[in-house]
Amino acid sequence: MPTWPITIDDVRAAEARIRPHLTPTPLRHYVELDAAIGHEIRVLVKHENHQPTNSFKIRNGLAALTALPAEARKRGVVAATRGNHGMGVAWGGALLGVPVTICVPEGNNPEKNAGMRALGAEVIEEGRDYDVAAGLAFELVEQRGLTAIHSSNNTQVIAGAGTMAMEILTQARAQGHTLDTMVIAVGGGSQAVGALTVLRALEPGVEVYAVQAAGAAAIHDGWHAGAPVTRERADTFADGLATRSCYAATFAALREGLREFITVSDAEIAEALRLALRTTHNLVEGAAVGGLAGLRKLAPRLAGKTVAVIFTGGNIDDATLRAVMNREI
Amino acid sequence: MPTWPITIDDVRAAEARIRPHLTPTPLRHYVELDAAIGHEIRVLVKHENHQPTNSFKIRNGLAALTALPAEARKRGVVAATRGNHGMGVAWGGALLGVPVTICVPEGNNPEKNAGMRALGAEVIEEGRDYDVAAGLAFELVEQRGLTAIHSSNNTQVIAGAGTMAMEILTQARAQGHTLDTMVIAVGGGSQAVGALTVLRALEPGVEVYAVQAAGAAAIHDGWHAGAPVTRERADTFADGLATRSCYAATFAALREGLREFITVSDAEIAEALRLALRTTHNLVEGAAVGGLAGLRKLAPRLAGKTVAVIFTGGNIDDATLRAVMNREI
Repeated sequence: MPTWPITIDDVRAAEARIRPHLTPTPLRHYVELDAAIGHEIRVLVKHENHQPTNSFKIRNGLAALTALPAEARKRGVVAATRGNHGMGVAWGGALLGVPVTICVPEGNNPEKNAGMRALGAEVIEEGRDYDVAAGLAFELVEQRGLTAIHSSNNTQVIAGAGTMAMEILTQARAQGHTLDTMVIAVGGGSQAVGALTVLRALEPGVEVYAVQAAGAAAIHDGWHAGAPVTRERADTFADGLATRSCYAATFAALREGLREFITVSDAEIAEALRLALRTTHNLVEGAAVGGLAGLRKLAPRLAGKTVAVIFTGGNIDDATLRAVMNREI
Repeated sequence: MPTWPITIDDVRAAEARIRPHLTPTPLRHYVELDAAIGHEIRVLVKHENHQPTNSFKIRNGLAALTALPAEARKRGVVAATRGNHGMGVAWGGALLGVPVTICVPEGNNPEKNAGMRALGAEVIEEGRDYDVAAGLAFELVEQRGLTAIHSSNNTQVIAGAGTMAMEILTQARAQGHTLDTMVIAVGGGSQAVGALTVLRALEPGVEVYAVQAAGAAAIHDGWHAGAPVTRERADTFADGLATRSCYAATFAALREGLREFITVSDAEIAEALRLALRTTHNLVEGAAVGGLAGLRKLAPRLAGKTVAVIFTGGNIDDATLRAVMNREI
């Protein structure tokens, strides 16, 4: 696999395929959020929580499905997920008439399972965590003749995620902002590599900082060590960030392209979530404020900059939201 | 004042004035929400919580400001509000360079006050409730030569609210739905009268049901009594619904146009809010789910119908959200 898994033309092609089905999400600026971050930073928030499935993953799923030939669409696809990637694939499958099978770990968020089933997907709940569920998904590829849509290790998925950065650049310019920096949370790395691909082609001066949850920091640790790392566990309430492996399609590009890679604790993610609720009045899940939590930590280094963060999704469950609101996290 | 304060042409003109500044908000259908409502009802949710100020009131404020002659824009405007109307007027004022003064009652939601100040408005906090603040606002009209933008008693405000119903009709049709019914919460009545104006011109078969909070039911009580009623208090956690008077611009039209008018308790509003969070993953304030709470109550009567409700806003404060999540309301 070459360092760079996709090109700007892949992102442009994905953009053209998904645009008939998805309108751009807002890029917003909140004076009160700026005041809370301080250091004269201007924060631009990309509201992927406004997507039909409440998550940016709808771009990835739709980009992957629309790239398939008719024969593969007819046989169907399989994905492994804790929720948002599966929702994106299931939404695209319902739209395009593609049969969708989704593998989730046991004990997966029941609201997310219900959401995928509501879109007509077959949901198989098996395995102790995401990586075990992913293993099962890849068995089904052979057994059932399905096409695999991995949530990160898939070039069309990364191209789909890259469309977000294209929109951010266009919208920031239209609103009169000069973007300096993006701070992006990493689960598998599709957003960060998608953004890096777009930025080095269109705005090479914009720097990208990456953030992982401290309890699920395999990619962060591998990035600093200079070689892929696998961990036994992924412990964070931000389930969209709970990976424990590095991925071949994204690792080398992250190594080459990122300005810096930091971690944030669950307490810092929860604090960012409360800040997002209070200053933007949008419902966000833990993973969605990984970037904002990272920005709070990086703020002294980013003084005076215009920084984009992505509210990647809003699919938080009742119990987790209650725990965050009650400061139990 | 004639029975009908505005015409469909007023709504069309408002639509043309606000469209360059506001993109349509999504109209969404959630299978899980349908399942929770039952009775084979299809629920369409209009996401006004996605507006830049997180509330439909931005339509009203912008419709009113864009209708003003240059001279009045230069002198400035004054509004009374508990928050969302003021945010809409302040946002429009910032956009168009119109000085904005906002009167709020003492102890008003501090996040909403901060939001209006962040948009450059002068916020005056005085008076025990909304109606007292409104009295002060009308003093300032004369003292300072400002134009009053009342949150309901203003034809351009009602026309602005009517643009929402126009969008709902267009979007429902484009999505293949045949709309039967709308269930609309009433604070001052601008949404309901705006919708009635649009529907009787374009889709007279669609019935409108109105809902008020049981603790702030002056318009409901007046509607059933056949004459305006004023109450001493307005007790509901849904602050956007906390009015205690009937308004001349909306009362007669509500009397003539509504199919039925019911009330819901604060407990029922809180239950609807939890349902909205769980099934749609959007942050909503109490007033925003007045319609949904009413739909839950009306469901047996609306079996088999396609029903639109409006999530009018997302500006709930931390303490109220926590109380709702913890089932203290």
